[in-house]
Parts: sequence; C-alpha cells; structure tokens
Amino acid sequence: MKQEIRILGIDDSPFTFKDKSCRIIGVVMRGGEYIEGVLSEIVQIDKLDATEKVIKMIKNTRHNKQLKAVFIDGVALGGFNIVDIEKIYENTKIPVITVTRDKPDIDNIKNALQKHFLDWEKRFNLINKGVLCKINTKHNPIFVKCAGICADEAKEIIKISTIRGVIPEPIRVAHIIASGVSRGESYGKA
Amino acid sequence: MKQEIRILGIDDSPFTFKDKSCRIIGVVMRGGEYIEGVLSEIVQIDKLDATEKVIKMIKNTRHNKQLKAVFIDGVALGGFNIVDIEKIYENTKIPVITVTRDKPDIDNIKNALQKHFLDWEKRFNLINKGVLCKINTKHNPIFVKCAGICADEAKEIIKISTIRGVIPEPIRVAHIIASGVSRGESYGKA
Repeated sequence: MKQEIRILGIDDSPFTFKDKSCRIIGVVMRGGEYIEGVLSEIVQIDKLDATEKVIKMIKNTRHNKQLKAVFIDGVALGGFNIVDIEKIYENTKIPVITVTRDKPDIDNIKNALQKHFLDWEKRFNLINKGVLCKINTKHNPIFVKCAGICADEAKEIIKISTIRGVIPEPIRVAHIIASGVSRGESYGKA
Repeated sequence: MKQEIRILGIDDSPFTFKDKSCRIIGVVMRGGEYIEGVLSEIVQIDKLDATEKVIKMIKNTRHNKQLKAVFIDGVALGGFNIVDIEKIYENTKIPVITVTRDKPDIDNIKNALQKHFLDWEKRFNLINKGVLCKINTKHNPIFVKCAGICADEAKEIIKISTIRGVIPEPIRVAHIIASGVSRGESYGKA
C-alpha cells in the first residue's frame, strides 16, 4: 500500500452541559505526515445528525476523490450522537474505520442510553452494528469497527498513519485542533 | 541546531466585511513534522489588540518553556491589526519572526492606512519598525522581520521547519486550520 494515501480523520470538540452543539473537525493527511486540509462542521449534541454531517463533510471536500479511508474517533460525535459507519460508506463509497483506545463497555452504555433517551433502542442498535476488532500494536491494543474495508486492510492503513503511540495521526491531529479551537489550548488525548 | 526544536506558528482566519472579530490560530510543532498543540485567540478586526493577544497566547501555553521561536504570517493579524514583534519579544523573551511571500508595498499600505485610520501614523510606524530581510530559498524568496534573533539564525529555523514550498510548516498548518475552521474547508496559501 502507498505510504502517502490520503486519509480523513474526524473528531469532535469538547463541550459543556450548557452547549447545544459542538464542532467536528476533519483533517486530510497524506499517510501520517503531511496535512493537506482541514474541514469543519457543526453537530447537535445528543441528537442523531452526526452521520449526515460526516457524509456532507466527505462529499463536499475537494479531496473527496483522493480519500482512501475515513477514521472516526469513537462511535459517536457530539455526546450520544452515534455514527452509522455503514451508512457513511454506502453514501460515500469511502471505507470508514472507528478507532477507540478502550473496548466499549456495552452494559454501561445501554444503561446510560436507557436513562436519557426515549429512542435508546435505536441508538443501542447503531452502536452494536458491525464487528469490533482488537488490533494489537507495539503499545496497547486499539479497537476498531470497519465499513467497506476488511480489518486486515484497516490495520495496514492504521500502521501507515501512526507515528507515535497508537492513535493514527489524522485522528490525533483532529483531536488537537478540535480541542485547541474550542478551549484556547489543546488538551487530552484522542 | 536541533531538528526538533519547538516552534509556534500563528495565522489569522479569513473574515468578511461584516465581521467584527476573527480567530487567530497558533500551532506548536517540533521542527516541521510533528504537531504538539493548537492554540486559539480572538482579535478585533482593524483594532490594535493583536500584539497583546499574541503575548497572551505565548505566555499562557504550557509549551511556553520549550518554544524556541514564534512565526507570524505577515505583519498583521485581523485586517490592519499590526503586530509589534519587538514588544512581543520583550514581553515573552521568545524570538519572533514575521514571514511573507511578497515584499510589502509600503506606498500602497501608507495610502490605505491614511484613507481608513485616524491613527494611521501609529500603524505605519509599527509596520516600518525593524529591518526587512530577503531570504532566498530553492523556490521563490521570502521576506522576514526578526525580533530577538538575527536573520542568519532565523534562516536556519525556517530551513528546519519547511517541508514543501517556501512557507514553514507551523505557519502553513496554522493557515489551513484557521481557514478550515472558519470556512468549513481550508483554502488558499499562507
């Protein structure tokens, strides 16, 4: 696989309980080294518009034709605004990979959803869609879900685009930008 | 000089004639390769608060002690909000270098300032402070002004932190972020 494939990494900005919306940041990189573009959209916190906003982001960017994969930090963007990665793939034909450091605690998530959302079952089913794969790295393992791409190929793209630690650069940089723009200085890890 | 010195690059976001303020973005990089942090401040368009906001950005970041130089894209951030790089250096003790692709057209700037500002002379004197140096590169030359550092050393830092083209990465990336966040997708060159 080419070392300089174009990858889009997406993360959301931190928010407080007073906020109704938050920003999601997309970063287009060649492999894990060179930033080619930054994209931005707004999602409603705890609504279900993240899938559609990600599709819009991918379809509208002039980098669209070059993109070989989309990374998303976690299964949701903007609280419990769960992303449907299969729908994103169907609409854009670009493989989508969610990346998390920890294995999601499904029972905890179910309880939280049941407590806060009338449509908890819809959100829970969305979270449960697809197969969670553990990928071993030199450091800690990471957990991914893939749409439009097999786990083996996803693993290779992750390897190409990871410089330090375990999180691919497009996600790490999207996190730093989202956090820095919303808080004045970037903090924390993707 | 170490290849991985920490550099802060600053650029402002694009704005329209309706906006009263705009965002300035700071990017902390190791050399020209690895992004360590993103900073953000707001400046008032055509006011004179950019100098103070840059000082605040530099003083407040947790990367402060590591910073070896600050690059600023051009002589102003937020319209004719001219930066006083000597004042920034005096207050932060970190060398400051402004970078532009084109030699500023001083007569044009003077005319514009006289037309729009009662305090045009103050702004014009600020722009004229310091010595403009032409730095030759493999491509087109760039023009810099330095405070707290000699042109030779500035040239070396620029060389270390430039990957493609003539603009150092910290400024190029700050431009892409500022533009992408404010417009939805990044456009144009630093």
